Amino acid sequence: MNEKKLKSILEKIHDKNYDCMILTQFNNIRYISNYAPTSFAICLLKDDPIILTSSMDKELAEKTSEIPVEEFKSFNELKKLFEKDNFKKIAIESSISISLFRKIEGNWDLNIEDFLEKERMIKSKDEITKLEKAAGISHKSFKELNPMKKREDGFTEWELAYELGYLLRKNGAEKESFETIIATGTNSSLPHARTQNKKLQTPILMDWGCKAEGYCSDTTRTFVYSEKQEEIFDIVFEAHNKAIKSVKAGIKSCEIDKIARSIISEYGYEKNFIHSTGHSLGLDIHEIPSISKKDETILEKNMVITIEPGIYLEGNFGVRIEDTIIVGKNKAEIIGNLPYSI
Amino acid sequence: MNEKKLKSILEKIHDKNYDCMILTQFNNIRYISNYAPTSFAICLLKDDPIILTSSMDKELAEKTSEIPVEEFKSFNELKKLFEKDNFKKIAIESSISISLFRKIEGNWDLNIEDFLEKERMIKSKDEITKLEKAAGISHKSFKELNPMKKREDGFTEWELAYELGYLLRKNGAEKESFETIIATGTNSSLPHARTQNKKLQTPILMDWGCKAEGYCSDTTRTFVYSEKQEEIFDIVFEAHNKAIKSVKAGIKSCEIDKIARSIISEYGYEKNFIHSTGHSLGLDIHEIPSISKKDETILEKNMVITIEPGIYLEGNFGVRIEDTIIVGKNKAEIIGNLPYSI
Repeated sequence: MNEKKLKSILEKIHDKNYDCMILTQFNNIRYISNYAPTSFAICLLKDDPIILTSSMDKELAEKTSEIPVEEFKSFNELKKLFEKDNFKKIAIESSISISLFRKIEGNWDLNIEDFLEKERMIKSKDEITKLEKAAGISHKSFKELNPMKKREDGFTEWELAYELGYLLRKNGAEKESFETIIATGTNSSLPHARTQNKKLQTPILMDWGCKAEGYCSDTTRTFVYSEKQEEIFDIVFEAHNKAIKSVKAGIKSCEIDKIARSIISEYGYEKNFIHSTGHSLGLDIHEIPSISKKDETILEKNMVITIEPGIYLEGNFGVRIEDTIIVGKNKAEIIGNLPYSI
Repeated sequence: MNEKKLKSILEKIHDKNYDCMILTQFNNIRYISNYAPTSFAICLLKDDPIILTSSMDKELAEKTSEIPVEEFKSFNELKKLFEKDNFKKIAIESSISISLFRKIEGNWDLNIEDFLEKERMIKSKDEITKLEKAAGISHKSFKELNPMKKREDGFTEWELAYELGYLLRKNGAEKESFETIIATGTNSSLPHARTQNKKLQTPILMDWGCKAEGYCSDTTRTFVYSEKQEEIFDIVFEAHNKAIKSVKAGIKSCEIDKIARSIISEYGYEKNFIHSTGHSLGLDIHEIPSISKKDETILEKNMVITIEPGIYLEGNFGVRIEDTIIVGKNKAEIIGNLPYSI
């Protein structure tokens, strides 16, 4: 754990007069402690932080956590801890379930605070190194995959995804950062298409990523085969390039989305760009801010975001192009230099 | 969707005077509609149910849903719908996040109800067929894997897991139902061990499953190599067998847990059985009831549960044996007949 980051979060907790912040999200606990839970765990984040784990996870937690670990007994025991320390005001994550919320209610205020999400927006040098490592593995594996050759060899969508997964692991990834999308033919018009048991058709849309030391990569390429597909590709590529060119510290997320969307609109495809322009990523594949119509976040140096415009012609085909970029003071830097066509 | 099940849930909604139940859990929506969301979606479950999806998911939803689909616009629009229909009392899932809960608060009561979880406990004939199909693929793939031969061939843990994943898909699975656990040597003492980049050691603990038509399988085998390992294996196997023998409609979940735990305790290993005896499964890999100390659920015919006692000797090794069983009127039926040693 980066001491500076822990200190910064504790300051926010103190500044708003919280006695403690409760963390249950696996990646928030990992971010703070280096312990990656595999089942329910809870971190009480205060000057003397503590992690409570299931008995099943205790050995793992003790081996990896930089914060003292005890066994979680019950919510009654937890509330006794709160009472003993005379907690009056506790910060909670926005993601906790309503049933967990009910279990920890008592004579104290429970307020949603995004201290962790906000802190995690700006990546440290060490985090950027890990994000670059993940992207490096991801791109190297793609080059080794040679999808065009695999198409000639009669591979199906899931076989191609599976071969890519093998290469990612062989090259040092822990696993995929999300389920690989290999969407070919008409299937490519679904942004979140599931791989099918059918031979590769055209166009070939691939959206893939991996995790290295917990950090995610995320890349999309679409390989087009007809004039119409090329025409759509060029529009998406223009939106992608101009959006990336607009990125620098100080610009709002929604402004970047607007730039990508306006180019696609110019060509008459506004209604076919059916998702946001991008998202942050780090330990999670989707973090805040999102690069979308409604997100007013002002970008800062060392945020890491994706830019991934797309056009989807229902029942026909789709094109999406995605890179992950590091926000700089005056411009953005694309991670890696993977070609857009092969 | 099974009309009978939908009717049964609607009756529960009416019986407690709810105007509607809101579903957001992907597998609850799938259970009701056959549409498996890939991003945020909401189902308003009432006499004339409706599903609201992201624009990105709309094509998929329209292709697969048995319930009418519209595009989700905003929470304000959603609340206008509630107002228009004069909703006073709305049921919600226990899993919705506190932030989503806050977004849908208004001039109506929002109460947590487990109508879906309760309905999903009892599997229909069609669901049992799918669970059996998943287990069949899972066991067939294991036999084709031949882990002992792979050990001689110098496979690492992740390579073995990856090869198994290939066979699962080749044999018709959509994907793993959870991340395959291949825990060998000292790694086996962690119930949720991550696969390592190291050659297979002994004992070999494998916990794996797949999804077929959305439904999960879950099996664990441990292959032991020393006298001490065999001794522990025999105790776990006795606990496994006696727990399964005790299962029938009418028994409480916690009583089954007690039977498994008491056998392990007799041999002095109570503190080394660090998780519950089992869990239900279906569309999700963990459903209710759990087979644990505190779960008072009375088992009913056509519940499908796992029995998976284990003993973990920290820093040394662990043994777990798991089967999935169908609760019958007078006894339980193990799905498949996969051997316990090879």
